[in-house]
Amino acid sequence: MTATDNYRGMARIAEPGEGVGLDELALAARNHGMPLEALRYDVTPPGLHYVLTHYDIPAVEPTSWRLEIGGAVERPLSLSLGELQSRPSVTSRVLLECAGNGRARLEPRPVSQPWLLEAVGTAEWTGTPLAPLLEEAGLSSETVDVVFTGADHGVERGVEQDYARGLPLAEAMRPETLLVWAMNGAPLPPQHGAPLRLVVPGWYGMAQVKWLTRVDVATEPFTGFQNATAYRLKVDSDEDGEPVTRIRPRSLLAPPGWPDFMTRERYLRSGPVTLSGRAWSGRAPVTQVEVSTDGGNSRGLAELAPADPAAPFAWRSWRFGWDARPGRYQLLTRATDEVGRQPVEAEWNRQGLANNLVQRVPVTVQE
Amino acid sequence: MTATDNYRGMARIAEPGEGVGLDELALAARNHGMPLEALRYDVTPPGLHYVLTHYDIPAVEPTSWRLEIGGAVERPLSLSLGELQSRPSVTSRVLLECAGNGRARLEPRPVSQPWLLEAVGTAEWTGTPLAPLLEEAGLSSETVDVVFTGADHGVERGVEQDYARGLPLAEAMRPETLLVWAMNGAPLPPQHGAPLRLVVPGWYGMAQVKWLTRVDVATEPFTGFQNATAYRLKVDSDEDGEPVTRIRPRSLLAPPGWPDFMTRERYLRSGPVTLSGRAWSGRAPVTQVEVSTDGGNSRGLAELAPADPAAPFAWRSWRFGWDARPGRYQLLTRATDEVGRQPVEAEWNRQGLANNLVQRVPVTVQE
Repeated sequence: MTATDNYRGMARIAEPGEGVGLDELALAARNHGMPLEALRYDVTPPGLHYVLTHYDIPAVEPTSWRLEIGGAVERPLSLSLGELQSRPSVTSRVLLECAGNGRARLEPRPVSQPWLLEAVGTAEWTGTPLAPLLEEAGLSSETVDVVFTGADHGVERGVEQDYARGLPLAEAMRPETLLVWAMNGAPLPPQHGAPLRLVVPGWYGMAQVKWLTRVDVATEPFTGFQNATAYRLKVDSDEDGEPVTRIRPRSLLAPPGWPDFMTRERYLRSGPVTLSGRAWSGRAPVTQVEVSTDGGNSRGLAELAPADPAAPFAWRSWRFGWDARPGRYQLLTRATDEVGRQPVEAEWNRQGLANNLVQRVPVTVQE
Repeated sequence: MTATDNYRGMARIAEPGEGVGLDELALAARNHGMPLEALRYDVTPPGLHYVLTHYDIPAVEPTSWRLEIGGAVERPLSLSLGELQSRPSVTSRVLLECAGNGRARLEPRPVSQPWLLEAVGTAEWTGTPLAPLLEEAGLSSETVDVVFTGADHGVERGVEQDYARGLPLAEAMRPETLLVWAMNGAPLPPQHGAPLRLVVPGWYGMAQVKWLTRVDVATEPFTGFQNATAYRLKVDSDEDGEPVTRIRPRSLLAPPGWPDFMTRERYLRSGPVTLSGRAWSGRAPVTQVEVSTDGGNSRGLAELAPADPAAPFAWRSWRFGWDARPGRYQLLTRATDEVGRQPVEAEWNRQGLANNLVQRVPVTVQE
């Protein structure tokens, strides 16, 4: 990336066939996805859950930390962690996925965190609903957005900033939207936002602001970098683009058999195999999961576990029986929700966002 | 990588200037390093500790799992996790580092897991010493190696295998060598080897076998893939090469200031700054840490925390005061142990192992 690109506020697009650069590699080495065999866990252990941090993981001292709630409110609030934890608490099983998941499978590749398929995880998040706090603070009747600011600080395309995102008021007021201090029954790990983060079920990860320091009520749409410049679906750089919001449907297969270390190609023994995986959507209920063992030419329906009414924003497990005979196969899985289905060809956009292209897994079945 | 390379048992070397490929990226997305700001923690939280798994993270059922101790012993043993946990236990603070740390900084780049600098972490490991168990089993007087086999299964350069490593008897009998079931006071997470792993303080990660199933006493040197083919320092493919054993000295700086998201370049404000980091060596005590702010032209000695006699295989913290004036700088840090010091030019080898080249951190100091 040249300084010029940087200061134009545009992400670079890789040349056709260009390998991943050291800048992308440095991001891939510090952030990490969920190894797909971890689809076996209903709740992802914290160290296997995907992590993306834009800047550094900040060192926040929980005892002196406070959350400030201000902006267009009648009574600004300043709350310690203990005060937040003494409020009514909720534990909710919620899937999170990075909006950049699938970016490195786009051609040409937008240069940023180079996710393939694995930027996902499901955890039990414990916190307190945000809406009653906003009501106590006394929202302006003119409120449009609620702006969440984290303690993480850095530069992005020339703009120095604390990470901050605006969320439409209606989303902030949903009863499922939580201020969260625990993950899987333990205090939030540093990389997941300790001491307090936001969880907005159904939305991609950019909305799930970590290391929260401020919540500001705004009577104008928030125009900060992470809303106005980043996280917008656009093909040409001069478009405004549509903001990225809710998670598109996706199904992932836990790759069967065993891998080659370097190529990650899969091998398995012939015989009956139960293929299994998880499917989700943040925008509408999943209605079916298709599985193909011949690259999509023929498809069958997976047996999809019933939706858990207590966890509408978690993933759902699925199973598909396959009598694997010796040979080479391309496994494919595709989720459909009440709005639509995963594409079989990628829909390119220049920031590499929300690419829910179907997963294809080549396997070799041995005698 | 072509199938031919694969079956010759040789790792591929990237062409000059060749970017990271999708195979390397798939490894980087599932394994992860320790973000360098996590050098601030004396003990690395599990999800920030580096992870490398050759194959898949296996699903091991701890209640039915047993450890078999056999081979050239008089009385083979079969032990449940409860039986192991009822033995004398030790908690030990130990640094682990992947032997491939630094691989992606070599030119040309050996194609494998593309670590830059961050494949490291320090944890509190709880387990029971191995030596008394081997003595109870009754070692053959002809014993040469002790072979550790994990439940992780895959293919590597054409060889299907359970991950297995031989360790010289003298190392297996060291009182510090532990069979470990807990990390930082909690049961081992899946990715760190649950329910039981080996910890051999001072050695690179390939010796720290995870998901242990068998310990076999051998009267001949172990010639399995991970000893005879992998983890050997060699320049030409027809050399036997020297086996990789203990961790070479390294010092890492927690990069000061804040990063650019994409380039990871660092910025800080002018004024007094305390640079800090960690240094370690698995082969001999660290004797000094040098810091330079001008790319190595001039150097000063960091203030190195005293060695903790209870934790000789942990890292040690260091500090270095710097009056940062506006401008661009290259920070550099270098550790010296009783045997030698980190190189300022990389010593290339074809598997990209044990590259402890000094770290260089470009920073821009602003008014």
